[in-house]
Amino acid sequence: MYHILYPLRSFLIVSGAETPDVMTADWVTVISRKPLLIGVSIAPGRKTHDLIKKEQAFVVSVPSTDMLPDVWTAGTKSGPAKTEQMNVTFTPSQQIAVPGIKEALANVECRVVDSPTYGDHTLFVAEVVGHTAGDAYDGTTPIRPERFLAHVGGNRFVSFAESEMRP
Amino acid sequence: MYHILYPLRSFLIVSGAETPDVMTADWVTVISRKPLLIGVSIAPGRKTHDLIKKEQAFVVSVPSTDMLPDVWTAGTKSGPAKTEQMNVTFTPSQQIAVPGIKEALANVECRVVDSPTYGDHTLFVAEVVGHTAGDAYDGTTPIRPERFLAHVGGNRFVSFAESEMRP
Repeated sequence: MYHILYPLRSFLIVSGAETPDVMTADWVTVISRKPLLIGVSIAPGRKTHDLIKKEQAFVVSVPSTDMLPDVWTAGTKSGPAKTEQMNVTFTPSQQIAVPGIKEALANVECRVVDSPTYGDHTLFVAEVVGHTAGDAYDGTTPIRPERFLAHVGGNRFVSFAESEMRP
Repeated sequence: MYHILYPLRSFLIVSGAETPDVMTADWVTVISRKPLLIGVSIAPGRKTHDLIKKEQAFVVSVPSTDMLPDVWTAGTKSGPAKTEQMNVTFTPSQQIAVPGIKEALANVECRVVDSPTYGDHTLFVAEVVGHTAGDAYDGTTPIRPERFLAHVGGNRFVSFAESEMRP
C-alpha cells in the first residue's frame, strides 16, 4: 500500500568502486538544505547495501525516459552479469571512488554520514559532495521535466507532462 | 542545488488537532515496507514542526493538480489566516486526532516513531496507521498519474504524462 505515495521518481544508485553495481531506487529524498543531505532507503540483503556500507559513498544517477530498459534491469535483476545487460558507461566521479553513469541526465556524488535502521530498510543519510548535470538542466535546475522518469508501480512508469503549471 | 533531484512530488502536510495547519512539503519518501514507515523532512521554525512535535502525528494529503493554488498558499504563506485562504475542508481521520483534507486525492495518517535532526531539518519518521484514497486510485494504486502534482522548483509545477511507459 506504499504506492499511495506514488508516482515517485526512479533513480539509479551506483555503488562499489572496483566493480560497480547499479540498483533502481524510488525511495530517495532531500533531507537538509545546508549541508545538502539526501536520504536513500535500501533493504539489507541487496548487494548495493553491502557496497555502500563498505565504501561509505554512492552516486545517485538520474535516468532519462530513454533509459527505462536499464532502470527495469537494475530494479529486477541481480548478480555480476547485471550491469553487462545494461547500456551504461561508468564514468569517474570528481569526489568519490564510486563512478557515475555517462548516459544519465545527472550524477550526484554522495558520502554517507549516518545509516540508521528503520523497519526493514537502512536509511542511508548522505552529504552531496559533487555533481554533474547535462542538458536536461540549466545548472542544477531541471528544464526538461518530460525527460525525467517516475515509477507508478510494478512495470508501470511515467514521465512528466511537457507543459508546466504556475500558481 | 538540491533541485538536481527534482521534479519531486508536492504533498500537503496537515498538523495539529484543534486548529489544523497545512504546509507544502516536497521532501517526503517511503522508508520501510513492513512496518510501513515514511520520512518527512521539515525545518524547525515552521509551525508544522511544532505541531508535529506536540501531537506526534500528522497527515500526508495528496493534492491534485486542481489544488495547485492551495499548494502554493500552503508553501508560501504562514500564520493563522493561512488555511482560511485555502479551499480545503478538514475531515476527521480514522486513527489520529489530526484531520485530513476532503478535497485531496488521498490522506495518509501517520504516527511519529522517531525525529532525528539532520543538518538544518528534522526528519520525522512515521508509521502509516490509516489511509483513505479516492477515485485517482484503484485501492491504493495510482491509476490517474496526470492528476498528481510535482514541483520543478520556484513557482514551476508539473503533472505526469497521460500515457504510461512499460519496459
